[in-house]
Amino acid sequence: MRVAVLYSGGKDSNYALYWALKQGFEVKYLVSMVSESDESYMYHVPNIHLTELQARAIGIPLVKGFTSGEKEKEVEDMKAVLEGLKIDGVVVGALASEYQKQRVDRVAKELGIESFAPAWHRDPVDYMREIIGIFDVVIVGTAAYGLDQNWLGRRIDEKALEELIKLNEKYKVHVAGEGGEFETFVRDAPFFRARVVFDEVEKKWNECSYSGVLEVRSAHLEPKGSSW
Amino acid sequence: MRVAVLYSGGKDSNYALYWALKQGFEVKYLVSMVSESDESYMYHVPNIHLTELQARAIGIPLVKGFTSGEKEKEVEDMKAVLEGLKIDGVVVGALASEYQKQRVDRVAKELGIESFAPAWHRDPVDYMREIIGIFDVVIVGTAAYGLDQNWLGRRIDEKALEELIKLNEKYKVHVAGEGGEFETFVRDAPFFRARVVFDEVEKKWNECSYSGVLEVRSAHLEPKGSSW
Repeated sequence: MRVAVLYSGGKDSNYALYWALKQGFEVKYLVSMVSESDESYMYHVPNIHLTELQARAIGIPLVKGFTSGEKEKEVEDMKAVLEGLKIDGVVVGALASEYQKQRVDRVAKELGIESFAPAWHRDPVDYMREIIGIFDVVIVGTAAYGLDQNWLGRRIDEKALEELIKLNEKYKVHVAGEGGEFETFVRDAPFFRARVVFDEVEKKWNECSYSGVLEVRSAHLEPKGSSW
Repeated sequence: MRVAVLYSGGKDSNYALYWALKQGFEVKYLVSMVSESDESYMYHVPNIHLTELQARAIGIPLVKGFTSGEKEKEVEDMKAVLEGLKIDGVVVGALASEYQKQRVDRVAKELGIESFAPAWHRDPVDYMREIIGIFDVVIVGTAAYGLDQNWLGRRIDEKALEELIKLNEKYKVHVAGEGGEFETFVRDAPFFRARVVFDEVEKKWNECSYSGVLEVRSAHLEPKGSSW
Protein backbone atom coordinates (compact mmCIF):
# COMPACT_ATOMS: atom_id res chain seq x y z
CA MET A 1 0.00 0.00 0.00
CA ARG A 2 1.58 3.26 -1.16
CA VAL A 3 0.35 6.17 0.93
CA ALA A 4 0.80 9.87 1.58
CA VAL A 5 0.56 11.10 5.17
CA LEU A 6 -0.95 14.51 5.81
CA TYR A 7 1.81 16.07 7.85
CA SER A 8 2.01 19.22 9.93
CA GLY A 9 4.77 18.24 12.34
CA GLY A 10 2.62 17.92 15.46
CA LYS A 11 1.83 14.84 17.51
CA ASP A 12 -1.21 13.74 15.50
CA SER A 13 0.39 13.74 12.07
CA ASN A 14 3.49 12.06 13.49
CA TYR A 15 1.25 9.44 15.03
CA ALA A 16 -0.42 8.92 11.65
CA LEU A 17 3.03 8.43 10.10
CA TYR A 18 4.15 6.11 12.91
CA TRP A 19 1.05 4.00 12.44
CA ALA A 20 1.43 3.87 8.66
CA LEU A 21 5.05 2.72 8.93
CA LYS A 22 4.05 0.10 11.50
CA GLN A 23 1.43 -1.24 9.08
CA GLY A 24 4.24 -1.74 6.59
CA PHE A 25 2.78 0.88 4.27
CA GLU A 26 5.14 2.47 1.79
CA VAL A 27 5.01 6.12 2.81
CA LYS A 28 5.91 7.89 -0.43
CA TYR A 29 5.27 11.50 0.58
CA LEU A 30 4.46 13.68 3.53
CA VAL A 31 1.93 16.28 2.42
CA SER A 32 1.63 19.64 4.09
CA MET A 33 -1.00 22.17 3.05
CA VAL A 34 0.06 25.77 3.67
CA SER A 35 -2.87 28.12 4.01
CA GLU A 36 -2.44 31.75 2.99
CA SER A 37 -5.08 32.91 5.40
CA ASP A 38 -3.69 31.62 8.64
CA GLU A 39 -0.03 31.86 7.75
CA SER A 40 -0.11 35.28 6.14
CA TYR A 41 2.35 36.27 3.45
CA MET A 42 5.26 36.49 5.79
CA TYR A 43 8.27 34.30 5.49
CA HIS A 44 9.14 34.47 9.16
CA VAL A 45 5.92 32.88 10.33
CA PRO A 46 6.85 30.96 13.45
CA ASN A 47 7.84 27.37 12.95
CA ILE A 48 6.32 26.85 9.52
CA HIS A 49 9.69 25.88 8.09
CA LEU A 50 10.43 23.41 10.83
CA THR A 51 8.26 20.88 9.03
CA GLU A 52 10.94 20.68 6.39
CA LEU A 53 13.58 20.01 9.01
CA GLN A 54 11.45 17.14 10.33
CA ALA A 55 10.97 15.74 6.82
CA ARG A 56 14.74 15.82 6.31
CA ALA A 57 15.21 13.99 9.60
CA ILE A 58 12.67 11.38 8.54
CA GLY A 59 13.99 11.14 4.99
CA ILE A 60 10.63 11.13 3.21
CA PRO A 61 9.96 13.77 0.53
CA LEU A 62 7.74 16.62 1.66
CA VAL A 63 5.10 18.01 -0.66
CA LYS A 64 4.03 21.54 0.19
CA GLY A 65 0.71 22.53 -1.28
CA PHE A 66 -0.65 26.06 -1.19
CA THR A 67 -4.19 27.14 -0.65
CA SER A 68 -6.03 30.39 -0.22
CA GLY A 69 -7.47 29.03 2.99
CA GLU A 70 -11.11 29.46 1.99
CA LYS A 71 -12.83 26.42 3.43
CA GLU A 72 -14.19 24.67 0.35
CA LYS A 73 -11.35 25.79 -1.90
CA GLU A 74 -8.95 24.21 0.57
CA VAL A 75 -10.43 20.77 0.01
CA GLU A 76 -10.09 21.17 -3.75
CA ASP A 77 -6.50 22.37 -3.37
CA MET A 78 -5.65 19.34 -1.26
CA LYS A 79 -7.32 17.09 -3.80
CA ALA A 80 -5.23 18.61 -6.61
CA VAL A 81 -2.04 17.99 -4.64
CA LEU A 82 -2.93 14.36 -3.89
CA GLU A 83 -4.25 13.70 -7.38
CA GLY A 84 -0.80 13.85 -8.95
CA LEU A 85 0.73 11.35 -6.55
CA LYS A 86 0.91 7.63 -7.28
CA ILE A 87 -0.69 6.52 -4.04
CA ASP A 88 -3.30 4.01 -2.97
CA GLY A 89 -4.22 5.75 0.25
CA VAL A 90 -3.95 8.80 2.46
CA VAL A 91 -3.38 8.80 6.22
CA VAL A 92 -4.58 11.61 8.46
CA GLY A 93 -4.05 12.34 12.14
CA ALA A 94 -7.65 13.37 12.80
CA LEU A 95 -8.74 12.76 16.38
CA ALA A 96 -12.25 14.08 16.70
CA SER A 97 -12.72 16.75 14.04
CA GLU A 98 -15.63 15.59 11.89
CA TYR A 99 -14.91 18.39 9.44
CA GLN A 100 -11.31 17.36 8.89
CA LYS A 101 -12.06 13.66 8.62
CA GLN A 102 -15.04 14.10 6.34
CA ARG A 103 -13.18 16.24 3.85
CA VAL A 104 -10.23 13.82 3.66
CA ASP A 105 -12.64 10.90 3.26
CA ARG A 106 -14.47 12.73 0.47
CA VAL A 107 -11.27 13.59 -1.42
CA ALA A 108 -10.03 10.00 -1.05
CA LYS A 109 -13.31 8.66 -2.36
CA GLU A 110 -13.23 11.01 -5.34
CA LEU A 111 -9.66 9.95 -6.11
CA GLY A 112 -10.47 6.27 -5.70
CA ILE A 113 -7.97 5.77 -2.90
CA GLU A 114 -8.31 4.65 0.70
CA SER A 115 -8.43 6.91 3.72
CA PHE A 116 -7.02 6.05 7.16
CA ALA A 117 -7.42 7.91 10.45
CA PRO A 118 -5.65 5.70 13.02
CA ALA A 119 -6.26 8.04 15.98
CA TRP A 120 -9.93 8.58 15.21
CA HIS A 121 -12.08 8.63 18.36
CA ARG A 122 -9.27 7.35 20.55
CA ASP A 123 -9.65 7.97 24.26
CA PRO A 124 -7.64 11.19 24.83
CA VAL A 125 -5.77 10.00 27.90
CA ASP A 126 -4.85 6.61 26.43
CA TYR A 127 -3.80 8.31 23.24
CA MET A 128 -1.63 10.89 25.00
CA ARG A 129 -0.03 8.18 27.09
CA GLU A 130 0.94 6.33 23.93
CA ILE A 131 2.17 9.59 22.34
CA ILE A 132 4.55 10.45 25.17
CA GLY A 133 5.88 6.92 25.12
CA ILE A 134 6.89 7.25 21.46
CA PHE A 135 7.73 10.90 20.78
CA ASP A 136 9.75 13.73 22.16
CA VAL A 137 6.90 16.21 21.88
CA VAL A 138 6.75 19.82 23.06
CA ILE A 139 4.00 22.41 23.24
CA VAL A 140 4.60 25.27 20.77
CA GLY A 141 1.26 27.04 21.03
CA THR A 142 -1.40 27.50 23.70
CA ALA A 143 -4.89 28.98 23.65
CA ALA A 144 -6.89 27.90 26.68
CA TYR A 145 -7.53 29.22 30.12
CA GLY A 146 -5.34 27.28 32.51
CA LEU A 147 -2.45 26.99 30.07
CA ASP A 148 -0.19 29.86 31.07
CA GLN A 149 3.06 30.79 29.36
CA ASN A 150 5.01 28.22 31.34
CA TRP A 151 3.48 25.63 29.04
CA LEU A 152 5.20 27.10 26.00
CA GLY A 153 8.20 24.98 25.12
CA ARG A 154 7.30 22.40 27.74
CA ARG A 155 7.88 18.77 26.92
CA ILE A 156 4.80 16.61 27.34
CA ASP A 157 5.80 13.90 29.76
CA GLU A 158 3.89 11.91 32.36
CA LYS A 159 3.85 14.84 34.79
CA ALA A 160 2.59 17.28 32.16
CA LEU A 161 -0.09 14.78 31.18
CA GLU A 162 -1.25 14.51 34.80
CA GLU A 163 -1.55 18.29 34.91
CA LEU A 164 -3.49 18.31 31.64
CA ILE A 165 -5.89 15.76 33.07
CA LYS A 166 -6.42 18.05 36.08
CA LEU A 167 -6.92 21.06 33.80
CA ASN A 168 -9.49 19.02 31.93
CA GLU A 169 -11.41 18.33 35.13
CA LYS A 170 -11.20 21.96 36.21
CA TYR A 171 -11.53 23.94 32.97
CA LYS A 172 -12.55 21.35 30.37
CA VAL A 173 -9.22 21.71 28.53
CA HIS A 174 -9.11 18.80 26.07
CA VAL A 175 -6.30 16.50 27.18
CA ALA A 176 -5.11 15.98 23.60
CA GLY A 177 -5.64 19.63 22.60
CA GLU A 178 -8.32 18.67 20.09
CA GLY A 179 -10.21 21.95 20.52
CA GLY A 180 -7.13 23.98 19.63
CA GLU A 181 -6.10 24.33 23.29
CA PHE A 182 -2.48 23.64 22.39
CA GLU A 183 -0.27 22.91 19.42
CA THR A 184 2.58 20.47 19.53
CA PHE A 185 5.85 19.82 17.73
CA VAL A 186 7.62 16.48 17.56
CA ARG A 187 11.40 16.79 17.93
CA ASP A 188 12.17 13.10 17.84
CA ALA A 189 10.51 9.80 17.04
CA PRO A 190 11.72 6.25 16.37
CA PHE A 191 11.62 6.92 12.61
CA PHE A 192 13.70 10.14 12.84
CA ARG A 193 17.29 9.61 11.65
CA ALA A 194 18.23 12.83 13.42
CA ARG A 195 16.55 14.79 16.18
CA VAL A 196 15.48 18.41 15.94
CA VAL A 197 17.29 20.67 18.40
CA PHE A 198 15.98 24.17 19.09
CA ASP A 199 18.80 26.71 19.22
CA GLU A 200 16.94 29.94 19.72
CA VAL A 201 13.35 30.28 20.82
CA GLU A 202 11.15 33.13 21.89
CA LYS A 203 7.91 32.97 23.80
CA LYS A 204 5.28 35.26 22.34
CA TRP A 205 2.55 35.72 24.88
CA ASN A 206 -0.69 37.62 24.42
CA GLU A 207 -2.23 38.50 27.77
CA CYS A 208 -5.50 39.71 26.24
CA SER A 209 -6.32 36.48 24.43
CA TYR A 210 -4.50 34.40 27.04
CA SER A 211 -2.65 32.56 24.29
CA GLY A 212 0.90 32.19 23.13
CA VAL A 213 3.33 30.79 20.61
CA LEU A 214 6.83 29.42 20.98
CA GLU A 215 8.66 30.95 18.06
CA VAL A 216 11.62 28.83 17.02
CA ARG A 217 14.09 31.24 15.49
CA SER A 218 16.71 28.67 14.66
CA ALA A 219 17.06 24.94 14.99
CA HIS A 220 19.28 22.21 13.68
CA LEU A 221 19.37 18.46 13.23
CA GLU A 222 21.53 16.25 15.40
CA PRO A 223 22.27 12.89 13.80
CA LYS A 224 21.25 9.88 15.89
CA GLY A 225 23.37 7.20 14.32
CA SER A 226 25.88 6.40 11.65
CA SER A 227 23.16 5.71 9.08
CA TRP A 228 22.54 9.42 8.65
CA MET B 1 1.80 16.78 -21.04
CA ARG B 2 2.00 16.65 -17.23
CA VAL B 3 5.46 17.62 -16.04
CA ALA B 4 7.54 18.32 -12.97
CA VAL B 5 10.08 21.12 -13.14
CA LEU B 6 13.32 20.73 -11.20
CA TYR B 7 13.29 23.93 -9.22
CA SER B 8 15.91 25.68 -7.13
CA GLY B 9 14.65 29.26 -7.37
CA GLY B 10 17.41 30.65 -9.57
CA LYS B 11 17.16 31.96 -13.11
CA ASP B 12 17.68 28.62 -14.87
CA SER B 13 14.97 26.68 -13.07
CA ASN B 14 12.60 29.62 -13.43
CA TYR B 15 13.39 29.70 -17.12
CA ALA B 16 12.62 25.98 -17.33
CA LEU B 17 9.26 26.64 -15.64
CA TYR B 18 8.55 29.66 -17.87
CA TRP B 19 9.25 27.57 -20.95
CA ALA B 20 7.11 24.65 -19.74
CA LEU B 21 4.14 26.93 -19.06
CA LYS B 22 4.59 28.57 -22.47
CA GLN B 23 4.46 25.12 -24.09
CA GLY B 24 1.09 24.64 -22.45
CA PHE B 25 2.44 21.86 -20.26
CA GLU B 26 0.54 21.09 -17.09
CA VAL B 27 3.16 21.78 -14.43
CA LYS B 28 2.00 19.57 -11.57
CA TYR B 29 4.93 19.95 -9.19
CA LEU B 30 8.11 21.90 -8.64
CA VAL B 31 10.75 19.51 -7.36
CA SER B 32 13.64 20.65 -5.22
CA MET B 33 16.33 18.26 -4.06
CA VAL B 34 17.93 19.28 -0.77
CA SER B 35 21.39 17.88 -0.30
CA GLU B 36 22.62 17.19 3.21
CA SER B 37 26.21 17.66 2.22
CA ASP B 38 26.09 21.15 0.84
CA GLU B 39 23.32 22.46 3.03
CA SER B 40 24.51 20.98 6.30
CA TYR B 41 22.13 20.12 9.09
CA MET B 42 21.43 23.70 9.95
CA TYR B 43 18.02 25.17 9.68
CA HIS B 44 19.22 28.71 9.10
CA VAL B 45 21.08 27.91 5.91
CA PRO B 46 20.84 31.07 3.84
CA ASN B 47 17.93 31.28 1.49
CA ILE B 48 17.03 27.61 1.35
CA HIS B 49 13.51 28.34 2.58
CA LEU B 50 12.94 31.07 0.06
CA THR B 51 12.15 28.41 -2.53
CA GLU B 52 8.96 27.74 -0.64
CA LEU B 53 8.06 31.41 -0.73
CA GLN B 54 8.52 31.36 -4.51
CA ALA B 55 6.39 28.23 -4.84
CA ARG B 56 3.64 29.92 -2.85
CA ALA B 57 3.86 32.94 -5.11
CA ILE B 58 3.63 30.70 -8.16
CA GLY B 59 0.91 28.51 -6.67
CA ILE B 60 2.34 25.16 -7.73
CA PRO B 61 3.00 22.49 -5.06
CA LEU B 62 6.63 22.12 -4.10
CA VAL B 63 8.11 18.69 -3.52
CA LYS B 64 11.22 18.72 -1.35
CA GLY B 65 13.33 15.63 -1.66
CA PHE B 66 16.26 14.86 0.59
CA THR B 67 19.55 13.30 -0.36
CA SER B 68 22.82 12.55 1.33
CA GLY B 69 24.54 14.43 -1.44
CA GLU B 70 26.77 11.55 -2.51
CA LYS B 71 26.92 11.82 -6.27
CA GLU B 72 25.40 8.55 -7.43
CA LYS B 73 23.04 8.27 -4.47
CA GLU B 74 21.69 11.68 -5.40
CA VAL B 75 20.52 10.44 -8.78
CA GLU B 76 18.71 7.52 -7.15
CA ASP B 77 17.13 9.84 -4.57
CA MET B 78 15.85 12.14 -7.32
CA LYS B 79 14.52 9.14 -9.21
CA ALA B 80 12.64 7.96 -6.12
CA VAL B 81 11.05 11.39 -5.72
CA LEU B 82 9.97 11.60 -9.39
CA GLU B 83 8.84 7.98 -9.49
CA GLY B 84 5.84 8.61 -7.27
CA LEU B 85 4.53 11.52 -9.33
CA LYS B 86 1.99 11.11 -12.09
CA ILE B 87 3.99 12.91 -14.76
CA ASP B 88 4.88 12.39 -18.39
CA GLY B 89 8.01 14.47 -18.33
CA VAL B 90 10.59 16.40 -16.36
CA VAL B 91 11.98 19.85 -17.22
CA VAL B 92 15.44 20.96 -16.14
CA GLY B 93 17.23 24.30 -16.38
CA ALA B 94 20.55 22.80 -17.41
CA LEU B 95 22.66 25.16 -19.49
CA ALA B 96 25.94 23.42 -20.15
CA SER B 97 26.49 20.88 -17.37
CA GLU B 98 26.78 17.50 -19.06
CA TYR B 99 26.72 15.80 -15.67
CA GLN B 100 23.42 17.40 -14.66
CA LYS B 101 21.73 16.83 -17.99
CA GLN B 102 22.91 13.25 -18.37
CA ARG B 103 21.66 12.20 -14.98
CA VAL B 104 18.23 13.75 -15.52
CA ASP B 105 18.04 12.13 -18.96
CA ARG B 106 18.97 8.77 -17.49
CA VAL B 107 16.38 8.96 -14.71
CA ALA B 108 13.70 10.06 -17.19
CA LYS B 109 14.54 7.15 -19.47
CA GLU B 110 14.40 4.68 -16.59
CA LEU B 111 11.02 6.08 -15.54
CA GLY B 112 9.71 6.03 -19.11
CA ILE B 113 9.06 9.78 -19.15
CA GLU B 114 10.37 12.59 -21.33
CA SER B 115 13.16 14.98 -20.40
CA PHE B 116 13.36 18.62 -21.49
CA ALA B 117 16.23 21.09 -21.11
CA PRO B 118 15.02 24.25 -22.87
CA ALA B 119 18.13 26.32 -22.11
CA TRP B 120 20.57 23.61 -23.15
CA HIS B 121 23.55 25.00 -25.07
CA ARG B 122 21.96 28.42 -25.46
CA ASP B 123 24.33 31.28 -26.25
CA PRO B 124 25.04 32.79 -22.79
CA VAL B 125 24.58 36.43 -23.82
CA ASP B 126 21.36 35.79 -25.75
CA TYR B 127 20.09 33.70 -22.89
CA MET B 128 20.90 36.32 -20.26
CA ARG B 129 19.27 39.01 -22.37
CA GLU B 130 16.08 36.95 -22.47
CA ILE B 131 16.31 36.26 -18.73
CA ILE B 132 16.53 39.92 -17.73
CA GLY B 133 13.61 40.71 -20.03
CA ILE B 134 11.38 38.24 -18.18
CA PHE B 135 12.54 38.07 -14.56
CA ASP B 136 13.41 40.28 -11.65
CA VAL B 137 16.59 38.41 -10.87
CA VAL B 138 19.28 39.21 -8.31
CA ILE B 139 22.68 37.76 -7.50
CA VAL B 140 22.69 36.00 -4.12
CA GLY B 141 26.07 34.30 -4.32
CA THR B 142 29.40 34.99 -5.98
CA ALA B 143 32.58 32.97 -6.38
CA ALA B 144 34.78 34.38 -9.14
CA TYR B 145 37.59 36.85 -9.37
CA GLY B 146 36.13 40.09 -10.68
CA LEU B 147 32.86 39.70 -8.79
CA ASP B 148 33.40 41.73 -5.64
CA GLN B 149 30.90 42.11 -2.83
CA ASN B 150 29.08 44.90 -4.62
CA TRP B 151 27.58 42.20 -6.81
CA LEU B 152 25.80 40.60 -3.88
CA GLY B 153 22.13 41.62 -3.96
CA ARG B 154 22.57 43.35 -7.31
CA ARG B 155 19.75 43.06 -9.78
CA ILE B 156 20.85 41.72 -13.15
CA ASP B 157 19.79 44.36 -15.64
CA GLU B 158 21.21 45.48 -18.99
CA LYS B 159 24.03 47.41 -17.31
CA ALA B 160 25.00 44.48 -15.10
CA LEU B 161 24.96 42.22 -18.12
CA GLU B 162 27.31 44.56 -20.00
CA GLU B 163 29.69 44.39 -17.03
CA LEU B 164 29.46 40.60 -16.94
CA ILE B 165 30.34 40.50 -20.63
CA LYS B 166 33.43 42.65 -19.90
CA LEU B 167 34.36 40.40 -16.95
CA ASN B 168 34.07 37.45 -19.29
CA GLU B 169 36.50 39.04 -21.74
CA LYS B 170 38.90 39.96 -18.96
CA TYR B 171 38.71 37.05 -16.50
CA LYS B 172 36.70 34.39 -18.36
CA VAL B 173 33.79 34.75 -15.93
CA HIS B 174 30.91 32.83 -17.56
CA VAL B 175 28.24 35.39 -18.47
CA ALA B 176 25.45 33.10 -17.26
CA GLY B 177 27.38 31.89 -14.21
CA GLU B 178 27.46 28.34 -15.51
CA GLY B 179 30.76 27.55 -13.81
CA GLY B 180 29.39 28.50 -10.41
CA GLU B 181 30.64 32.09 -10.69
CA PHE B 182 27.37 33.37 -9.31
CA GLU B 183 24.04 32.16 -7.97
CA THR B 184 20.78 33.94 -8.69
CA PHE B 185 17.35 34.30 -7.13
CA VAL B 186 14.20 35.23 -9.02
CA ARG B 187 12.00 37.64 -7.08
CA ASP B 188 9.37 38.09 -9.75
CA ALA B 189 8.26 36.55 -13.03
CA PRO B 190 5.12 36.76 -15.19
CA PHE B 191 3.80 33.58 -13.58
CA PHE B 192 4.27 34.86 -10.00
CA ARG B 193 0.97 35.92 -8.38
CA ALA B 194 2.98 37.83 -5.78
CA ARG B 195 6.52 39.14 -5.78
CA VAL B 196 9.16 38.25 -3.21
CA VAL B 197 10.36 41.26 -1.22
CA PHE B 198 13.54 41.02 0.85
CA ASP B 199 13.10 42.65 4.26
CA GLU B 200 16.40 41.96 5.90
CA VAL B 201 19.56 40.85 4.15
CA GLU B 202 23.15 40.43 5.16
CA LYS B 203 26.18 40.20 2.92
CA LYS B 204 28.54 37.46 4.02
CA TRP B 205 31.87 38.00 2.35
CA ASN B 206 34.90 35.75 2.54
CA GLU B 207 38.03 37.64 1.54
CA CYS B 208 40.22 34.52 1.45
CA SER B 209 38.11 32.63 -1.06
CA TYR B 210 36.94 35.86 -2.72
CA SER B 211 33.36 34.67 -2.55
CA GLY B 212 30.18 35.70 -0.83
CA VAL B 213 26.54 35.02 -0.09
CA LEU B 214 23.59 37.32 0.31
CA GLU B 215 21.80 35.89 3.31
CA VAL B 216 18.12 36.75 3.26
CA ARG B 217 17.06 36.81 6.90
CA SER B 218 13.46 37.65 6.26
CA ALA B 219 11.30 38.20 3.24
CA HIS B 220 7.64 38.43 2.42
CA LEU B 221 5.27 38.18 -0.52
CA GLU B 222 3.60 41.24 -1.98
CA PRO B 223 0.43 40.38 -3.93
CA LYS B 224 0.45 41.62 -7.53
CA GLY B 225 -3.25 41.55 -8.27
CA SER B 226 -6.66 40.80 -6.91
CA SER B 227 -6.44 37.16 -8.02
CA TRP B 228 -4.15 36.36 -5.10
